[in-house]
Amino acid sequence: MAERIAVYPGMFDPVTNGHLDLIERGVKIFDRLVVAVVTNPSKTPLFTIEERVSMLQKVTRNIANIELDSFNGLLVDFVRQKKAKFILRGLRAVSDFEYEFEMALINRKLDNDIETVFMAPSLEYIYLRARLVKEVSKVGGDISDYVPGYVAERLKEKFGQI
Amino acid sequence: MAERIAVYPGMFDPVTNGHLDLIERGVKIFDRLVVAVVTNPSKTPLFTIEERVSMLQKVTRNIANIELDSFNGLLVDFVRQKKAKFILRGLRAVSDFEYEFEMALINRKLDNDIETVFMAPSLEYIYLRARLVKEVSKVGGDISDYVPGYVAERLKEKFGQI
Amino acid sequence: MAERIAVYPGMFDPVTNGHLDLIERGVKIFDRLVVAVVTNPSKTPLFTIEERVSMLQKVTRNIANIELDSFNGLLVDFVRQKKAKFILRGLRAVSDFEYEFEMALINRKLDNDIETVFMAPSLEYIYLRARLVKEVSKVGGDISDYVPGYVAERLKEKFGQI
Amino acid sequence: MAERIAVYPGMFDPVTNGHLDLIERGVKIFDRLVVAVVTNPSKTPLFTIEERVSMLQKVTRNIANIELDSFNGLLVDFVRQKKAKFILRGLRAVSDFEYEFEMALINRKLDNDIETVFMAPSLEYIYLRARLVKEVSKVGGDISDYVPGYVAERLKEKFGQI
Amino acid sequence: MAERIAVYPGMFDPVTNGHLDLIERGVKIFDRLVVAVVTNPSKTPLFTIEERVSMLQKVTRNIANIELDSFNGLLVDFVRQKKAKFILRGLRAVSDFEYEFEMALINRKLDNDIETVFMAPSLEYIYLRARLVKEVSKVGGDISDYVPGYVAERLKEKFGQI
Amino acid sequence: MAERIAVYPGMFDPVTNGHLDLIERGVKIFDRLVVAVVTNPSKTPLFTIEERVSMLQKVTRNIANIELDSFNGLLVDFVRQKKAKFILRGLRAVSDFEYEFEMALINRKLDNDIETVFMAPSLEYIYLRARLVKEVSKVGGDISDYVPGYVAERLKEKFGQI
Repeated sequence: MAERIAVYPGMFDPVTNGHLDLIERGVKIFDRLVVAVVTNPSKTPLFTIEERVSMLQKVTRNIANIELDSFNGLLVDFVRQKKAKFILRGLRAVSDFEYEFEMALINRKLDNDIETVFMAPSLEYIYLRARLVKEVSKVGGDISDYVPGYVAERLKEKFGQI
Repeated sequence: MAERIAVYPGMFDPVTNGHLDLIERGVKIFDRLVVAVVTNPSKTPLFTIEERVSMLQKVTRNIANIELDSFNGLLVDFVRQKKAKFILRGLRAVSDFEYEFEMALINRKLDNDIETVFMAPSLEYIYLRARLVKEVSKVGGDISDYVPGYVAERLKEKFGQI
Repeated sequence: MAERIAVYPGMFDPVTNGHLDLIERGVKIFDRLVVAVVTNPSKTPLFTIEERVSMLQKVTRNIANIELDSFNGLLVDFVRQKKAKFILRGLRAVSDFEYEFEMALINRKLDNDIETVFMAPSLEYIYLRARLVKEVSKVGGDISDYVPGYVAERLKEKFGQI
Repeated sequence: MAERIAVYPGMFDPVTNGHLDLIERGVKIFDRLVVAVVTNPSKTPLFTIEERVSMLQKVTRNIANIELDSFNGLLVDFVRQKKAKFILRGLRAVSDFEYEFEMALINRKLDNDIETVFMAPSLEYIYLRARLVKEVSKVGGDISDYVPGYVAERLKEKFGQI
Repeated sequence: MAERIAVYPGMFDPVTNGHLDLIERGVKIFDRLVVAVVTNPSKTPLFTIEERVSMLQKVTRNIANIELDSFNGLLVDFVRQKKAKFILRGLRAVSDFEYEFEMALINRKLDNDIETVFMAPSLEYIYLRARLVKEVSKVGGDISDYVPGYVAERLKEKFGQI
Repeated sequence: MAERIAVYPGMFDPVTNGHLDLIERGVKIFDRLVVAVVTNPSKTPLFTIEERVSMLQKVTRNIANIELDSFNGLLVDFVRQKKAKFILRGLRAVSDFEYEFEMALINRKLDNDIETVFMAPSLEYIYLRARLVKEVSKVGGDISDYVPGYVAERLKEKFGQI
């Protein structure tokens, strides 16, 4: 069988333990996993695209068979360019589900050869969202259970707490 | 990488086009897909276990890399016995989602090495349930868009319409 | 424009104030509303089909432009037989929504000329289900806000409280 | 019976095939359907109110018994001014459902004589949102299955792709 | 302030760690918590009412300020009889939420002085249901994370595994 | 038992009858209820923090055992500072539920001694949101069923309608 490549797209603003958990599950299924940071000009992330990729590099360096990249434009175009046939997405909650389902069906319509595959993160990360991590971190809360130590430091830096 | 084997468990009472659609998506990811009919003594299916397996055989004979089987007992035990590492499940609707999620987390707890992978069926089968097919068929409705011709015949037979 | 006829199908086991509320909303849109009691052999209702139709007759006698009937078999066949083009259904809660949506799409598939139309009951009946009314009534609870007086009497009779 | 008039309000930024599908279903029930573009100063649509009305005119010119208009202010005031008794809304997904339900109940409270009527779009448009069409179009994706050709051209124009 | 008494009703068929978790949270708010086993003649529990109460006694004997009881009939009548003003219920998932909400509103209607109070169980018990515990136990699965040891023994006994 | 203190946090922009309903339910359970206006620099409320606190003071002056305050920073820090052990939150709809659940679990993680307690508002306020009240008020709609008279006046003032 041909090499199975999947793209795991996201904002990763910043990468959390939930993302890492999903990456580790993804590399069990796919021969190669391209973790792809989305450059979306209509959103204003806390970290620049370079910072987000750099944090990902730091915290995933011990995970084999992954590749880090960023993209703008259409996800299916990027997937094709990577010669991937799969998109990996985590599902945590009902509120995610409908949005993710919509995106999976739209992407299938845009390219019928690309399949979206969903996995469940570890139970302890089910209620973890990057947005919440930023809100809690901003007001000085302890987020050490939610992000790797390196990312916790970058958040403190960003919020002028160091 | 070791051979990737997944189990796709279900009642298949009877197999529908939605199940076939998911099987065809599954064999794109996994090296081998074990379609496993559940023998659940607390439910009373319309078709016997033999009839359900036999219908599956008939309608999947042109799909490569699948194996048909049935099991009772614990799903994770059957998965291990098949030397599989993955469980495949389709997700159609919000009402499925929570139940499937629960099962995935319970199965992960029972065996942390087994991952559940979710895929979306084709849009046209999203609102298809075996239960509805049986109800419509029973009162003489046309179900030819929902099940293979062979299965439609077996339903008519079962309901004394032939 | 041709006469607009709708069918409002249900178990009506028994008819509640929520059903009456929806019937009164339905007759504002449609020229004629056929309230149709479902005869489903696989369910065991509390009241017989005759009792359910008879209670409906009693409590809807002052509502113009409605017709009471019962049916078994395929809903769309009954709708066609009544020369109706519409099915009326109430929507109360998220848990209803997916089931009702599924049925609407299945019925549209079975007959593309028949449309399902949804309306919201009055806020006070949003959490009213016939099943709950029966459970509360059975143990002697006061259900006078949920069903017409005549129906409350029939429930007491049925549960041997008179 | 008096003429049955309904208002179908929306942003229509831009009109999609899903909107057209619902308009065609709506004119089967109502004698006249007023398609009303919302002028909401707190949102910044992609197209001006004039552009949105003009696109609607172009793509609905063959549909009988409709009228195009725009409004700001309270929906129920506009409905009354049009001598309408009904509001038409499409329901696609659970995430829509609660919001639409809330609005229906608020509007009923503001004017008890105005009823909201819900219909399901064609299955193929269930996962279609104007926001997604804009996002996909912006990055050069093919949206020809989702909007009429004329609208696809206006989107390209807007995004400087022509 | 008067003594605050709450009733925590349930089937407890059998009591799980999730129930115990909620009981321990409940006694932090209320002065006394009446854990009340429901005797519902229309359901056929695995354990008799005596077995369920007895298991509860065994596993809650170290929790202060609780009382064990059983009841049939209307919950609000039992609550009043216990001179309680509150009903305690756990919320785990969206699928629970609507049912629990309905019951809370019905019970408030039946007795406006009785309030339902909801709490979230520990994250690890969110996907735990007594039904799943029984299914897994029945086929010989390990349920030691989900129920107290004493209850695990009773389940094995019941399923003839001892 | 020690005094039971709860914090009821919110934007209160402005306070609605739904908030008041929940406050009145909360004081039945807790010895003291701290109603705490959130100062969230990333949101731009209609009313200033002073206006929001002042409106609350006006409309709650007849409710015993409550205290009004405002805070920024981490909710659990504020709760500890108030020597409270409970957070009170209202639950109205499925869409609220997942967000509230997430927050409850995050807050429990940040401080395991603080419990979130949920209550249902009166049925008539279930579909009431401060955002809707502002939208309806802004375009001149009648909101007298949704907010106290004093608040209705402040809204008119704010929107230059007086």
